[in-house]
Amino acid sequence: MSNDTVTAPNGFLAAGLHCGIKQSGKNDLGLIVCPAGAKAAAVFTTNRIVSAAVQISKKHIRSPKIFAVVVNSGNANACTGQTGIKNAIKMCSDTAGQIEENPHSVLVASTGIIGEQLPIRKITTGISKAVSKLSATSEAGSDFTQAIMTTDTRPKQAVRRLEISGRKITIAGTVKGAGMIAPNMATTLMFITTDAAITKALLSRSLKSAIGNSLNRLTVDGHQSTNDTAIILASGSAGNRPITAQCPRYRKFSAALADLCDDLARQMALDAEGATRMFKVVVRGAATEADAAKASRAIADYPLVKCAIHGGDPNWGRIICAVGSAKIKLNPDKLTCKIGGVTVFRNGCPTKFDPKKVISIISQSEHTITVDLGAGKKSDFCYGCDLSAEYVRINADYHT
Amino acid sequence: MSNDTVTAPNGFLAAGLHCGIKQSGKNDLGLIVCPAGAKAAAVFTTNRIVSAAVQISKKHIRSPKIFAVVVNSGNANACTGQTGIKNAIKMCSDTAGQIEENPHSVLVASTGIIGEQLPIRKITTGISKAVSKLSATSEAGSDFTQAIMTTDTRPKQAVRRLEISGRKITIAGTVKGAGMIAPNMATTLMFITTDAAITKALLSRSLKSAIGNSLNRLTVDGHQSTNDTAIILASGSAGNRPITAQCPRYRKFSAALADLCDDLARQMALDAEGATRMFKVVVRGAATEADAAKASRAIADYPLVKCAIHGGDPNWGRIICAVGSAKIKLNPDKLTCKIGGVTVFRNGCPTKFDPKKVISIISQSEHTITVDLGAGKKSDFCYGCDLSAEYVRINADYHT
Repeated sequence: MSNDTVTAPNGFLAAGLHCGIKQSGKNDLGLIVCPAGAKAAAVFTTNRIVSAAVQISKKHIRSPKIFAVVVNSGNANACTGQTGIKNAIKMCSDTAGQIEENPHSVLVASTGIIGEQLPIRKITTGISKAVSKLSATSEAGSDFTQAIMTTDTRPKQAVRRLEISGRKITIAGTVKGAGMIAPNMATTLMFITTDAAITKALLSRSLKSAIGNSLNRLTVDGHQSTNDTAIILASGSAGNRPITAQCPRYRKFSAALADLCDDLARQMALDAEGATRMFKVVVRGAATEADAAKASRAIADYPLVKCAIHGGDPNWGRIICAVGSAKIKLNPDKLTCKIGGVTVFRNGCPTKFDPKKVISIISQSEHTITVDLGAGKKSDFCYGCDLSAEYVRINADYHT
Repeated sequence: MSNDTVTAPNGFLAAGLHCGIKQSGKNDLGLIVCPAGAKAAAVFTTNRIVSAAVQISKKHIRSPKIFAVVVNSGNANACTGQTGIKNAIKMCSDTAGQIEENPHSVLVASTGIIGEQLPIRKITTGISKAVSKLSATSEAGSDFTQAIMTTDTRPKQAVRRLEISGRKITIAGTVKGAGMIAPNMATTLMFITTDAAITKALLSRSLKSAIGNSLNRLTVDGHQSTNDTAIILASGSAGNRPITAQCPRYRKFSAALADLCDDLARQMALDAEGATRMFKVVVRGAATEADAAKASRAIADYPLVKCAIHGGDPNWGRIICAVGSAKIKLNPDKLTCKIGGVTVFRNGCPTKFDPKKVISIISQSEHTITVDLGAGKKSDFCYGCDLSAEYVRINADYHT
């Protein structure tokens, strides 16, 4: 069986284990190591309140080469003051010490409960054990993925294989979280490895673009957490002619990376807390791209739309209401809405459609809502998921 | 027993009955008539897609005197094209014909399902019956309130009595809806009557201010419907020295009106779909009032905060996360949060508090969350309610 984990690209080792943070006994500490050093890029949360891990990784990502990423789940190390910062630094220095590299060349990420200090001794011991378990097997990659999960009901992984200048390139990624939602603080963490040879600047550009069209298009409750982090490491071991300009090789790499991130974003939407189905919202005919983005998010975030989709109710009126609320330019007499291939609202008026057909469309695990604002030529899209009673149960009953 | 309905102020008659729109057989047509003509003011939805009733009432509100308001529930008459407009006009002209006034002096409001045409013949017959039932009794006022309800579990009414220039003034109001939420389109309708003598301009100013501090501070799902309408009618029958300037009499009247609207907004929050409790969010220490408003709404609208409050979980981390996401100016090192009287987060760090005490606070039917952004001296507030599995059931299972 092929390796579809973060150890699939050449040049990476991984490990995951239970160090003692989670009461469940499940994996809560993960490590990715690139022994030769990797070019790295990252995207962090835009929340004004950020975890200690994010504060430290934002500094360390400036290092020309990154040798390891250390991650814990079960504790977000957010809103933890100076002690939190010290602990995040210690996670880097412990890892660096074990692999004999500079602490600044180690990135750190945390996810879980906020406002509590990390059990740093357990983590120190765990890091030492994890280093001794490092391996390039798919089991090691899976262990890592298990170690980053919180309320995720299944591991989320994806891999893309392509050829650049005659060399086989692999890009592999794993992600945790359900959009911005997870217990007690909601965190999304994404880790991507590749053996492509590419400059740090282009790796960063490619990651930002891919995230912009995937994770940033996914809205579960419209919020970004204190811990959101997406990291890509490029080992260069594939031996391709290095990607140093925005040439066709760069575009091929970026297309594969974007496709991988899109795959992971869809997996997240389908595994969002309590979600039973996902949907894509496409907004066309907008005066500006910003308007299209705003309108698509207004629809995907509107609780009444999410509830209607959960109930399999072809309630297009709620979609129109959400669009009207979005504070964007629209032409009420041209406004048109399609659910799947069925036009339910055309030029400002309801159409006669077969409700059974629309019910069957929105009852699928994925469907597309298309809205034309009749106000221009710009378009944008986003992904959303339904809102279920289970979501409320998870988030009301989960103990702090 | 005192009359606490819209017929409490002198100069108003009301009626409510079942004309055949709602399958339940409950009241679905209501009428308020001011035989001598009333000064009137109104606030309408800011949704770009507005119902036919809103389109027509926006024109008719310009008339110097309003003699009647006709309202139906069970059908929003929204997204109904030219037929919808004709039907809204017909509701006004039918009413006007019965009371022998000009159709332009009649206001109309609708609430309920969208995208379906009104059963206009039933409504015409109903208007004729309603006119014959008009009365100044509290029963008639209650019948009216019943006629505007949709998913409301109880009638929402309030009355304020005051004295201006030695004359007794009464202000009475009724409201329907659960914030912006109701089946299939979500509508808030508010009708206020008063016997105060006041100019149209000042009545309008006073209503806008009162709504701004009550209905506009209430967020259930952050959206405004296609039908939201608040109307105030002033008969002048109290015989007070007319309020013609922003004098102490105006301020006294406005304070009472604001208090009445605040009362109705709280009643709405507590009767929001699936809600079991409400909360007030006060944001202080903001750089601007707009920042304070944005931050308070970000907290009140955040599903994870609403779920935590539903579960009685003192999960302050979600409040901090919502504030951080609000795209406003804040000082992370000064950020402070109180739940009721208990400080749970001070100057960017968690405090040691008694979780049992905070659990008992957030388990009450009303509590206050106070956040200090540490970025300035401005403040603002809003009202929110919890998010329950029942909300999802109501909005997922309600059939179009």
